[in-house]
Amino acid sequence: MPADSSVRYVYQFSEIAAVRASVGGDWQAVRALLGGKGANLAEMSSLGIPVPPGFTISTAACRDFLAADARLPGTLWDEVLAAVRAIESATRKRFGDRDNPLLVSCRSGARQSMPGMMDTILNIGLNDEVAAGLARRSGDERFAFDLYRRLVQMFGSVVMGVPDEVFDAVITAQRNRLGVTSDAGMDAAHWRLITARFKEIYRTYTGADFPADPYDQLRLATEAVFRSWNGKRAVDYRNAAGIPHDLGTAVNIQTMVFGNMGANSATGVAMSRNVSTGERELEGDFLFDAQGEDVVAGIRLTQPLAQLAQQMPEIYREFAGIAARLETHYRNVQDMEFTIEQGRLWLLQTRDAKRTAQAEVRIAVDMVEEGLITREEALRRVRPEQVDFFLHPQLEPDAVRRAELIGSGLNVSPGAAVGMVALDAALAQRWGRDEDKPVIMVRPETKPDDVHGMLAARGVVTSRGGRTSHAALVARQFGKPAVVGIEALEIDLERREMRLGDVVVREGDWISIDGSNGLVYVGKLPTLVPDLSNTYLIRLLEWADEVRRLEVWANADYPRDAARARLYGAQGIGLCRTEHMFFEAERMPLVQRMIMAREPSERNEAIAALLPPQRSDFEGLFRAMEGRPVTIRLLDPPLHEFLPAYDELAEELANLKVRLQHLRSIAEIDETLEQIRVKQHVLERVRALREQNPMLGTRGVRLGIQLSELTRMQVRAIFEAAVACTREGIVVMPQVMIPLVGHVNELRIQREVLEREVKQVLAENGNIRIPYTFGTMIEVPRAALTADEIATVAGFFSFGTNDLTQMTFGISRDDAERGFMREYQARGILEDNPFATLDRNGVGRLMRLAVEAGRATNPQLHIGICGEHGGDPRSIAFCHEIGLDYVSCSPYRVPIARLAAAHAALGV
Amino acid sequence: MPADSSVRYVYQFSEIAAVRASVGGDWQAVRALLGGKGANLAEMSSLGIPVPPGFTISTAACRDFLAADARLPGTLWDEVLAAVRAIESATRKRFGDRDNPLLVSCRSGARQSMPGMMDTILNIGLNDEVAAGLARRSGDERFAFDLYRRLVQMFGSVVMGVPDEVFDAVITAQRNRLGVTSDAGMDAAHWRLITARFKEIYRTYTGADFPADPYDQLRLATEAVFRSWNGKRAVDYRNAAGIPHDLGTAVNIQTMVFGNMGANSATGVAMSRNVSTGERELEGDFLFDAQGEDVVAGIRLTQPLAQLAQQMPEIYREFAGIAARLETHYRNVQDMEFTIEQGRLWLLQTRDAKRTAQAEVRIAVDMVEEGLITREEALRRVRPEQVDFFLHPQLEPDAVRRAELIGSGLNVSPGAAVGMVALDAALAQRWGRDEDKPVIMVRPETKPDDVHGMLAARGVVTSRGGRTSHAALVARQFGKPAVVGIEALEIDLERREMRLGDVVVREGDWISIDGSNGLVYVGKLPTLVPDLSNTYLIRLLEWADEVRRLEVWANADYPRDAARARLYGAQGIGLCRTEHMFFEAERMPLVQRMIMAREPSERNEAIAALLPPQRSDFEGLFRAMEGRPVTIRLLDPPLHEFLPAYDELAEELANLKVRLQHLRSIAEIDETLEQIRVKQHVLERVRALREQNPMLGTRGVRLGIQLSELTRMQVRAIFEAAVACTREGIVVMPQVMIPLVGHVNELRIQREVLEREVKQVLAENGNIRIPYTFGTMIEVPRAALTADEIATVAGFFSFGTNDLTQMTFGISRDDAERGFMREYQARGILEDNPFATLDRNGVGRLMRLAVEAGRATNPQLHIGICGEHGGDPRSIAFCHEIGLDYVSCSPYRVPIARLAAAHAALGV
Repeated sequence: MPADSSVRYVYQFSEIAAVRASVGGDWQAVRALLGGKGANLAEMSSLGIPVPPGFTISTAACRDFLAADARLPGTLWDEVLAAVRAIESATRKRFGDRDNPLLVSCRSGARQSMPGMMDTILNIGLNDEVAAGLARRSGDERFAFDLYRRLVQMFGSVVMGVPDEVFDAVITAQRNRLGVTSDAGMDAAHWRLITARFKEIYRTYTGADFPADPYDQLRLATEAVFRSWNGKRAVDYRNAAGIPHDLGTAVNIQTMVFGNMGANSATGVAMSRNVSTGERELEGDFLFDAQGEDVVAGIRLTQPLAQLAQQMPEIYREFAGIAARLETHYRNVQDMEFTIEQGRLWLLQTRDAKRTAQAEVRIAVDMVEEGLITREEALRRVRPEQVDFFLHPQLEPDAVRRAELIGSGLNVSPGAAVGMVALDAALAQRWGRDEDKPVIMVRPETKPDDVHGMLAARGVVTSRGGRTSHAALVARQFGKPAVVGIEALEIDLERREMRLGDVVVREGDWISIDGSNGLVYVGKLPTLVPDLSNTYLIRLLEWADEVRRLEVWANADYPRDAARARLYGAQGIGLCRTEHMFFEAERMPLVQRMIMAREPSERNEAIAALLPPQRSDFEGLFRAMEGRPVTIRLLDPPLHEFLPAYDELAEELANLKVRLQHLRSIAEIDETLEQIRVKQHVLERVRALREQNPMLGTRGVRLGIQLSELTRMQVRAIFEAAVACTREGIVVMPQVMIPLVGHVNELRIQREVLEREVKQVLAENGNIRIPYTFGTMIEVPRAALTADEIATVAGFFSFGTNDLTQMTFGISRDDAERGFMREYQARGILEDNPFATLDRNGVGRLMRLAVEAGRATNPQLHIGICGEHGGDPRSIAFCHEIGLDYVSCSPYRVPIARLAAAHAALGV
Repeated sequence: MPADSSVRYVYQFSEIAAVRASVGGDWQAVRALLGGKGANLAEMSSLGIPVPPGFTISTAACRDFLAADARLPGTLWDEVLAAVRAIESATRKRFGDRDNPLLVSCRSGARQSMPGMMDTILNIGLNDEVAAGLARRSGDERFAFDLYRRLVQMFGSVVMGVPDEVFDAVITAQRNRLGVTSDAGMDAAHWRLITARFKEIYRTYTGADFPADPYDQLRLATEAVFRSWNGKRAVDYRNAAGIPHDLGTAVNIQTMVFGNMGANSATGVAMSRNVSTGERELEGDFLFDAQGEDVVAGIRLTQPLAQLAQQMPEIYREFAGIAARLETHYRNVQDMEFTIEQGRLWLLQTRDAKRTAQAEVRIAVDMVEEGLITREEALRRVRPEQVDFFLHPQLEPDAVRRAELIGSGLNVSPGAAVGMVALDAALAQRWGRDEDKPVIMVRPETKPDDVHGMLAARGVVTSRGGRTSHAALVARQFGKPAVVGIEALEIDLERREMRLGDVVVREGDWISIDGSNGLVYVGKLPTLVPDLSNTYLIRLLEWADEVRRLEVWANADYPRDAARARLYGAQGIGLCRTEHMFFEAERMPLVQRMIMAREPSERNEAIAALLPPQRSDFEGLFRAMEGRPVTIRLLDPPLHEFLPAYDELAEELANLKVRLQHLRSIAEIDETLEQIRVKQHVLERVRALREQNPMLGTRGVRLGIQLSELTRMQVRAIFEAAVACTREGIVVMPQVMIPLVGHVNELRIQREVLEREVKQVLAENGNIRIPYTFGTMIEVPRAALTADEIATVAGFFSFGTNDLTQMTFGISRDDAERGFMREYQARGILEDNPFATLDRNGVGRLMRLAVEAGRATNPQLHIGICGEHGGDPRSIAFCHEIGLDYVSCSPYRVPIARLAAAHAALGV
């Protein structure tokens, strides 16, 4: 008994009621004191579930031990002795007794499960006399010495740090000598011999005899568990996982029960439901006549739990009943360890089971229907990232384990894709048309004129580029799995092959990629294709919709994207990037003609020719989103993006000039001269448009003001399409979005010009009524800072957090992600990648300012976000917090965003 | 008399006391009611100064007239008639009387002088009969008809809009017919004839006869003045000058007096002091027997005022007395018009005189000493820009008027320079050494290896680049006048000439440039060289120093800059750009070796070799700034700025490869191959360092973290220099400034590394005590937004408003200033260039946030600005307003900033 009655370190499993009372009934406080494992054992005891008697040494003891320079605090050992006596009386065995010995296990157990700490020592209490006695009493000498050698090995390796391999080597040598392949070939004498060897090894390594006194064993094991809390691996893990270092671990001392005591003994693990699919069935594996570690180690072939129902129906029923009670008690699927000792069932552990995303969703929904949990609880359980699983094919996990990994890059667009390597867009398109020739397009990087190849391909791989590279943006846009920026990847267009280190993959060979983790495998791996029509997910997302306040919109440039977005639950289009329409193969020549025009008339002709295709794009969008807002951003990128690259042009010109020297016919010379003239003209234009920092250059509204013919054409296309739809009875809500505004005057002047065009189109069509708004991106820091001014001429704001983050940090993302940002993240200078998760303190502060200032001068202002952060759960939580009206993300992230928005509303 | 006695529109000059009383004695309200001219005339009357009798129709009358659709408001005309009668009785003449006629002038006069409005009509009251009577009474028919034809011409052109040229053509034709070259050749008959023609012209253009009734003349003239308030030119002017449109103009009706009534008559203008130099002497010009406009028109050669003292000593004394009284009354130098009519002196106008910067300063200081104004008043009067005059040579204004202007560009570094064109740096240096061969270096753009040429040149001209181009920065740094970005400038290095349109200037020819307005002239223009040792300026700036709260520091990279800065009154160095030291010719190879190093050892050797020169630079700075803080910014620019440009390298490589084909000797081939290898190595490095948006790339602290050996070397150099100086008894206060910080962790991690180096250096030197601080630039928006966090690890903040403006606006300045920014300013989208004057609403808001947040967590935080705005008066006012501690600007702007800071403190 403790000298100071107010401090108590040791609790019997059966004392859970007292413990709970001492911490005011708080379950978390119980776990903090007893650790997860100890608390669950006590909990089971109190439910009347058969748990081998035992006790827990609290985390407080660990803390005091460490604080006292690794000395057991005052009363602790006395309490342990008392607790051992209590077990002895419960089991009617005695610790260290040679006739009727009590053996115990010693296990660590912190509040949270935590790798890196000392784990388990079984069979404590054995020594030469006790082993002999146990052999006598059990009538099974082999059993007794098998237990004894395990104790010496575990104690030696785990407590004293003797290398495990040395013990294993002895067993292997013994087997070889006997010519047997498994431990089954060993008899009692062999184990006794091995036990003796083990003790010698122990002495050699530790310089001391193996402790024969069972209490010494127990004390040393307990101290070792305490010390392991501050072991390097445990500290590293806590640092990484953000677990405080001052919690300490508990120690659980529990009576050993034995599943290896003959045919009416067994041991196993079981889950209360199927953790792969979520189905309501008890599942697990067990072994007759075995100890627990044998099941996990996979040395012997286990049997499915169903077999137990056949062979021990009563025990099975008892276990099934316990599993159901534990599920009800914990309101969660349980992962349980059990042992059957000579016909008697014992539970050794229970905990919430790990499960797949698919199972998580189904179990959550099922448990709501079973009345176990509330809808809110179900929503809280499923992480938004888990929804992603339903949206993309996955590589089959077993196949992945066996596959040859050949490279890794940035995981820019999730999902798995399997196909034949095609090294250019034309080939990708040709092959890709054929159902039997799925293609992975592999390029150094992609450009607008590769898009048709990307569309035809199942997936995309590049050696260059970052998360906002063209390849990444387009791949995400179209839901194509993609891995980009694989630095080690060499692409040899002469030999038509790609090389990754020593591996050569020829064009046409199969590869498999996983865009969710950025890995590339050689060969054709099988895939799993989950889908969003999963009824459980649909129900869950419906519940999410009831809870969330934020609307979820989608970024979609084409009618087919819009249709998918709507299917996935998007409530509007938050961003249609009109320039993507310009990049289409048949339109590029028109766009280039516009840029190259020497005369206004020529330019206006090209612009006029772009009107009909733009109009039909918008019509498609409006039809797909009938009755919902469609936000169309006017032309954003700098013009030079539509022209060939300067370096390429310069090289082509140089080549043409060289060629000229070798020509003989006048016709050829004339032709080449003409080509040179044309290229020179393009080169001059490219040079004139070239900018030192194109990200901060002439684009967005700056271009729209300079080239208002173009934005006027776009607005005309939008409203002519709107008129056509309205005439058919389709409700259309166009929102015209002006990008890159930094000063209210930019928006004012551009809006005036465009609003005139709108009025004109409507007047041409009998002043038909169409509800529309003009608004702006908030993506330049100054726009956020002067949101009060800008809001007076904007119907809505949409935060373009990609650019806003770049400018606020002063970081060019593509440059940085292949440069200093890696080091910054590795060294913890930046905790998160601010391009993946909104930077609350910096960019977030700016957003908050903008929301407050904007609403101050325009209380009706509608505010959303259309940067990539709109699909990131943590960023969505922030958007909720600062009072945005909606988030807009890629169609494939809409379901994730719906759940994340619900989480935000629930304060998860 | 007005029907409603509370409204009164017309005031006699003599009624000033009543007017003043009616507006509560407020002088500004008097001017608002009577206009500036009317108020001054009334004021002079009240001082007993001889002013021809007259009255003012108030601005209220104008407002009511315009509000009533251009009808004279109710009682106005009655009041005018009464006022005319009052003048009649004062002058004992009668309006329209053929025997003793009163003639009057009619002049507009708004609160502020304002071009674009109807100005003056003289001689109102003449018709055929009155003219005949006047001829009789004066005995001078020529005089009478000269007045009459002037009235018809002025009334026709000014009131009725008849083209002035038509009248002039008649006079010219008449002269030609007579064969005379000036009006002196005309006699009475000629003027009578011309008067008749003028009336015909009047009838032809207006469809009506010239109004014979003097009252019709007066009414029409008054109405025309009122209407001209809303004329297009006046409205445009008010828009541009920010004058409200609802003020209205007053009309002054005044008795005509005549300086052209013989040898005892005269007319002239005079200033109460010399407005060029500020000397205390009455100066002016006059003509005997002439009307006022003749003096201004420059038709006749005027006489200096001294002549009047000779010829009419009494009148001169009277005038000098009046001038002195007016100066005392207005406490300012007066610009006066006077007329002597037959021996009697009349003052027709007085106003504050316009003056040169030099005169402004001297007059302000003199008037303080004379007790006329307070020091504060003197400070208020001198605009900071006027101080600039004392700092740079100026082109001689008369010479400029005659010179051939050949081009204009950006005025990036003020002052005039005259020299011979040198088209490369080597030549500039060779010639520039010779006192007799001053050089203007002309280049397409400049680079680090042009700096020695720029130093040797008197001025710099480039065809490319903007306000932050290398040429602009370096030129400002060294106070070299510069004009950059002259788009029309072609430089032909083959022919060694420059072309601007049709003008060809050969190398060695003289040109003159004015960096204050960006103009380039052909030839060797004379210059004026004012200087800062002007004792008046020194006194004024001393008074400024007493008043201001902001400290003024300087940006200086070299000891010679620091010395100048100190001479000009800098209280510290706010920015020493260490990379400028790297650009020096003998150090570049070391810097390049460091960048190109393949092995860390090689790199560290190069870095070590840079230590001694850096140390000696810093020693020089510390000596120059003894006892004052010196802020040294660690390396900022991206590494590729120290390597040749990619395009150039690629071209050189291509050339070498071509050359290889033509070589015959093995030795030459080997040598060329080696050159190719070297260049290829450099090219690869340049390619690797290339960034899409270098402004947002790997530079500043990002580089410092990656390459901490380099920043550690810089810190070592700083503190070894500090130790050396301290040992000599020189007080040194180094402030180490870390650039481009966006996240507190960047600063923390870099500071830790550097602080260790500091401790190390101090330990190596017996732990000598040196007061130092570490601080950071605030130039990334995120730094401003998270200033509270950053301030916890910074001793000072220095706003880098160049980059802060670029990032906050999302504008790359160099790109923008040759692109869309021109249109933005032309169209008024941006009122000011935000790179010249701080953008209060956007960037300013961010600064204010940062100051508040930074001081909240670190009340001792010292805050300044070192961007170019630190030398801009309006920006300085803002810095004062948000509570900065200091501004830092180029040495040449320090005196300006001292005055601007005083203005800020005075709330000017």
